[in-house]
Amino acid sequence: MKLRGWVNSKRELGGIVFIEILPENSLGLVTVVVKKKESPQAWEVAKGVKLGSAILVEGTYPPISLSKRGREFKADKLEVISTPRAPLPVDLTLKTGIHFDTRLRYRYLLLRTKEERALFKIRANVLKIAREFLEKKGFLEVNTPKICGAGAEGGATVFELEYFGRTAYLAQSPQLYKQMLMTGLTKVYEITPYFRAEKHHTTRHLNESWAIDLEMGFIKGMEDVMEVLEELVCHIIEGVRKECEEEIEILGVEIDSPRRPFARLKYDKVLEILNEEGIHIEWGEDLGDAEERALGKVMKNEGYNLYFITHYPWKTKPFYIMKEDGLSRSFDLDYKGLEISSGGQREHRYEELIKNIREKGLNPKDFEFYLEAFKYGMPPHGGWAVGVERLLMKMLNIDNIRETILFPRDIQRLIP
Amino acid sequence: MKLRGWVNSKRELGGIVFIEILPENSLGLVTVVVKKKESPQAWEVAKGVKLGSAILVEGTYPPISLSKRGREFKADKLEVISTPRAPLPVDLTLKTGIHFDTRLRYRYLLLRTKEERALFKIRANVLKIAREFLEKKGFLEVNTPKICGAGAEGGATVFELEYFGRTAYLAQSPQLYKQMLMTGLTKVYEITPYFRAEKHHTTRHLNESWAIDLEMGFIKGMEDVMEVLEELVCHIIEGVRKECEEEIEILGVEIDSPRRPFARLKYDKVLEILNEEGIHIEWGEDLGDAEERALGKVMKNEGYNLYFITHYPWKTKPFYIMKEDGLSRSFDLDYKGLEISSGGQREHRYEELIKNIREKGLNPKDFEFYLEAFKYGMPPHGGWAVGVERLLMKMLNIDNIRETILFPRDIQRLIP
Repeated sequence: MKLRGWVNSKRELGGIVFIEILPENSLGLVTVVVKKKESPQAWEVAKGVKLGSAILVEGTYPPISLSKRGREFKADKLEVISTPRAPLPVDLTLKTGIHFDTRLRYRYLLLRTKEERALFKIRANVLKIAREFLEKKGFLEVNTPKICGAGAEGGATVFELEYFGRTAYLAQSPQLYKQMLMTGLTKVYEITPYFRAEKHHTTRHLNESWAIDLEMGFIKGMEDVMEVLEELVCHIIEGVRKECEEEIEILGVEIDSPRRPFARLKYDKVLEILNEEGIHIEWGEDLGDAEERALGKVMKNEGYNLYFITHYPWKTKPFYIMKEDGLSRSFDLDYKGLEISSGGQREHRYEELIKNIREKGLNPKDFEFYLEAFKYGMPPHGGWAVGVERLLMKMLNIDNIRETILFPRDIQRLIP
Repeated sequence: MKLRGWVNSKRELGGIVFIEILPENSLGLVTVVVKKKESPQAWEVAKGVKLGSAILVEGTYPPISLSKRGREFKADKLEVISTPRAPLPVDLTLKTGIHFDTRLRYRYLLLRTKEERALFKIRANVLKIAREFLEKKGFLEVNTPKICGAGAEGGATVFELEYFGRTAYLAQSPQLYKQMLMTGLTKVYEITPYFRAEKHHTTRHLNESWAIDLEMGFIKGMEDVMEVLEELVCHIIEGVRKECEEEIEILGVEIDSPRRPFARLKYDKVLEILNEEGIHIEWGEDLGDAEERALGKVMKNEGYNLYFITHYPWKTKPFYIMKEDGLSRSFDLDYKGLEISSGGQREHRYEELIKNIREKGLNPKDFEFYLEAFKYGMPPHGGWAVGVERLLMKMLNIDNIRETILFPRDIQRLIP
């Protein structure tokens, strides 16, 4: 049989060359054993092969493998497919530490290691499991535009571009479009990039991130969409536990089954809890990172990794969220002290929506294309978005969000 | 049982009101029958309900349905969920013609018709079938950045934006990134938006479109990736035929099974064929729309809807395509006279790649982040991209590409 991969390490011992590769897209390390006595030609090639070379090996797996690092493979033939023109900038045995910036810069080389591959296999699985779940539930996959005529939520956090002489914006989210679709469909979802021009320097923000976005019509209240969210997140976590056993072992993490139903805390209750922890928040203020973390610890002691925070003051929420007695029909879903999703019931009544837009200091004129869809029998609707990278961070105990995406975009990183 | 939907038409006959709806995300028209004698309250509501209203109906399907338009549903209760504040701008029975622009503008309302829903259900199915196929083949789904530090192919056809004081570009395609990944993985795919700032006024171009992008390492030649493409396209077409019978019937189209293997014509041969048709192309020129259509007719007579055109002159192709004797290791896949995919083997040799970049009048400095990945054992690789909208156009005999995407972006359309 044939194996293809890159030389991650190599050592010689007497008349034997040992070459470590991770064949194809697999996660199983292989130690290619080339013996001078048995395959003099392959041995000659193996002796000369450089670290990092792409190679093709022909041979067999012997019935018994003695190697501890990877399964042994006895080589009969060895061909060098591509030789590096420079020494590798990273040690792919991972025995030497790699600086974080270097790791992000040479992500494509690190994908020759099982650790990095495991992470991105889990990422792909999260998307796959989410799609399967949502399709089974009758949600239709849609694609909404990323280049838009108006900033999604009207804030100052959008990237601007010139579009054939007009000003356009990169979609901050599919929010306005998925809502517009609620006047013709009842269940839609989209897995999509988000573009946000915020000047963050944190370990939990990206300027280009991915989300699982959902919207649902004819709802009775926000509990309808919270239930779907809870089910989806559990389905993803359980799905990864089941389908990615090898990946999880490689990453050395333990993923706990969520306690269900997720706790549901009102904003006011959260303020009380935090107050007991000595953290005082002015009523009406949003929760910051420190507060979210503190709440995460309290909830962990209660046995909850995942919990909803509901009924935020309306002033902390965007215009499209429905008001209720000065509060809002909105929720966040936090996972181990980090917001991974937010959503709620939307304002579907034309006149109220215009009032909301004005109240946020925005101009309804800028949202005409969106408001138009609310004139023709828009039903009550709601939805949410889950941040793919944040979900991965918390599920896999990763400290920096940049690790969870192949080519992160932040205030400094525009390449690679 | 309960049905939810919008009133597409309504008529009264004696003591009976007939209301036509397309419940939820379904494709089956329902005629809600409300009889004064049997449900006086529901009848009262039904009499007053406006066209376009979102309604909730409780009742039962009678054992025998007499209606020709849609299955009858006997209403016991009727609730108006949301009433339009303006008359509907389109006739959702589709008895009155709708201007093309109006149709695109009110896409979200047209999704209340089975014709429009059928189209977008097929679209979602195409993506689903593609993913299932590629995952089964061992391709890993990846997400590459849409905001980039360099124009994808260095042309003048990219959208520019400011990225925290630097100039950035919207990804024309994931080309450079999927290639960089070929030095760490052997099989990747991405379904992704494309952003192109070309000033087209045609029925086959969009400024934001979607593609199924694939790249494969350790290939022997371009035939390796052509085979995967042929298999995928056939799998999609057969999958749609099987899984979307109802949708296809609604759209009234016939989808033919492709003749396999697809014909493989060299560029020189295509010039010959066209010459016989009285169309003369200078050697070295790319094929235009008229030429593609003419070739489509010839191939149709040979029994081929789908056929490859290979070995284009290198000067018609981008820098990353591998040269071969003045020609290129490249191909287009045409479907009924329209290019729906192009691909080829890439230049993986660092020095040759730099030469190619220079030859195209570009500056290797602008591609340093990309070239870097070619220094460390990049194997031979190749791939392609299939345009989702073009594939849909040809599969479903749709004349204008704008119909195949919910919110098209063209030189005039930035909203909705």
